[in-house]
Amino acid sequence: MLVSPNTLRVFTENIFKAIGCSTEHATLAADVLLRSDLRGIDSHGVARLSGYVRLWEKNRINATPNIQIVHETPTTATVDGDAGLGLVVAPFAMQVAIKKAELYGSGWVSVRNSNHFGIAGYHALMAVEKDMIGFAMTNASPLVAPTFSSERLLGTNPMCYAFPAGHYPPVVVDLATSAAANGKLEIAQRLGKQVPEGWIQDQHGQYTTDPHALKTGGALLPLGGDRDHGSHKGFGLSATVDILSAVLSGANYGPWVPPFVAFLDPPANPVGQGIGHFVGAMRVDGFRPVDEFKSHLDNWIARFKTSATVDPTQKVIIPGEPELEAEQHRSTHGIPLVDAVVTDLHILAERFGVEPLQGL
Amino acid sequence: MLVSPNTLRVFTENIFKAIGCSTEHATLAADVLLRSDLRGIDSHGVARLSGYVRLWEKNRINATPNIQIVHETPTTATVDGDAGLGLVVAPFAMQVAIKKAELYGSGWVSVRNSNHFGIAGYHALMAVEKDMIGFAMTNASPLVAPTFSSERLLGTNPMCYAFPAGHYPPVVVDLATSAAANGKLEIAQRLGKQVPEGWIQDQHGQYTTDPHALKTGGALLPLGGDRDHGSHKGFGLSATVDILSAVLSGANYGPWVPPFVAFLDPPANPVGQGIGHFVGAMRVDGFRPVDEFKSHLDNWIARFKTSATVDPTQKVIIPGEPELEAEQHRSTHGIPLVDAVVTDLHILAERFGVEPLQGL
Repeated sequence: MLVSPNTLRVFTENIFKAIGCSTEHATLAADVLLRSDLRGIDSHGVARLSGYVRLWEKNRINATPNIQIVHETPTTATVDGDAGLGLVVAPFAMQVAIKKAELYGSGWVSVRNSNHFGIAGYHALMAVEKDMIGFAMTNASPLVAPTFSSERLLGTNPMCYAFPAGHYPPVVVDLATSAAANGKLEIAQRLGKQVPEGWIQDQHGQYTTDPHALKTGGALLPLGGDRDHGSHKGFGLSATVDILSAVLSGANYGPWVPPFVAFLDPPANPVGQGIGHFVGAMRVDGFRPVDEFKSHLDNWIARFKTSATVDPTQKVIIPGEPELEAEQHRSTHGIPLVDAVVTDLHILAERFGVEPLQGL
Repeated sequence: MLVSPNTLRVFTENIFKAIGCSTEHATLAADVLLRSDLRGIDSHGVARLSGYVRLWEKNRINATPNIQIVHETPTTATVDGDAGLGLVVAPFAMQVAIKKAELYGSGWVSVRNSNHFGIAGYHALMAVEKDMIGFAMTNASPLVAPTFSSERLLGTNPMCYAFPAGHYPPVVVDLATSAAANGKLEIAQRLGKQVPEGWIQDQHGQYTTDPHALKTGGALLPLGGDRDHGSHKGFGLSATVDILSAVLSGANYGPWVPPFVAFLDPPANPVGQGIGHFVGAMRVDGFRPVDEFKSHLDNWIARFKTSATVDPTQKVIIPGEPELEAEQHRSTHGIPLVDAVVTDLHILAERFGVEPLQGL
């Protein structure tokens, strides 16, 4: 089904309102999910809407949270999300970071007691709109084994850095610190295909190309894949995300991070509250005039875009470019939804008495 | 040759003094190089001393720099290193960041007009001593091809994050954003061995296992190796380091970064000054009480250290652990130097009339 962005937005808002979110929160949460669908990151958009609802049903998401700063200095803060939707908690934290940056040059916020925050790029780009550099990361349900380990101890723990350019669109570096995202495994499962070596290991820690290995106790591998190819670096980056997001804020970390899926219970012995994020903003003009920075970043982008390539038909891709192209295309041509998601959304509509989604 | 740390320190200080460095700068620069040798990162220690001297001979390193802040807000600054040794410019910048963090919670400094700064871990650990989280990164001579490119456009651009723990030593995540560091290629060259696929490509951009390919126009690959294994992530991280270190400070970036070796001239059309770094410090107690953070980080470390492993004799390695073990061992048992380095240092001693190095 192909739907118009606006139809999908209104539908998503209505579902969030139906579970008790304020209009303001419902609008914001829908905006974050929609932005993901627009940017072509289908795994993090409305495909997850029913997942949020199921967690709300289990009282693991609070639709009316009292999100607040619990500790701060002029440029740092810890925010307690009160088990609210990460989709509203993370933008709150980012607003705090931006306000601190406006006053003091930079702002950094660690967040506890939150949930899945959607795409990291959404939050980092909030800073870019203010001519700031944006940072956003989050820990996540344990699916990744550290180098040498046979246990799942880390999430795919994404990190995002976003930079404002001049003529060109912003550079948005947004990456899971695992070799491959879970969504890529799901695609291979649907197509009945094997995955490349270096993505996953089985329950004994042996490398495998079977995309189903994750369901039988296997684990995703850190970026790098194996030790020879730098998996200890992927592990180190993932550890960094976990420590900044959770050890620093008082959220759960490592294997204690509660699963995003409602059918798995959170660990019985939590070491903190909910999951954690870490966001930040730095004013570009805290370092050099904005126009100078932008013109040099444009020069950087232009040089990389016109680099000689191995295959002349395949250009170098600037980080953030594919997502922006998707956003431009889908904004005018509509958002394609796979059948499973359409079914999911129809069930939600029925259950909450919300007007069902109409295709284009 | 096995030398005592103190002998090597005095020798290195004497060489820096001989090229005109102040006692303060010579002591600091020697400390940074020595720390690298102590921590087992032989490629970044005194093995590079003659390299710094050759750049000084070419007037590309200024032994008496006027290092200064050229732009700032309460928590951000740009430092101009005046072409000084990165070994003294980066600690200056880190002191600025720490001072700002003491006053406002965090401090962030982008540096231009600098040179090779040694190991990133040295600088990040300066913050850890103050119960802060330390960040350090630098761009470097172009040796790495972005995903799909056949050109060398980026350095191995390392990033380091360091966190203070309680009972355990600090967690120090310090990684080159390339799949393999150049030093590993050099080892394979010496041993006449092939390197794993996914480390380098030849001058046409074809993957190769020949460790000499870099000398004939080839390039290192970003962390991830190829697109299927996430090389676009390694490229994105390397781009982040380049932008924060150089586009933000006014240093050279991408292919314009001047080479560290004196026999290669800097590009004729610079886009900035020297090479760039980016360092930062955040007070742990800007987020939560230090003892709470440390006890949770200890818990994190303990859980990961005791994780089940694929090979029971191979434990999970906490980032920073191997370097600390080397530091403890070499501090008492001495630092081993390979013949080529010993010869290099003897030549330096003779040339500057400095007392030659004596082994243990």
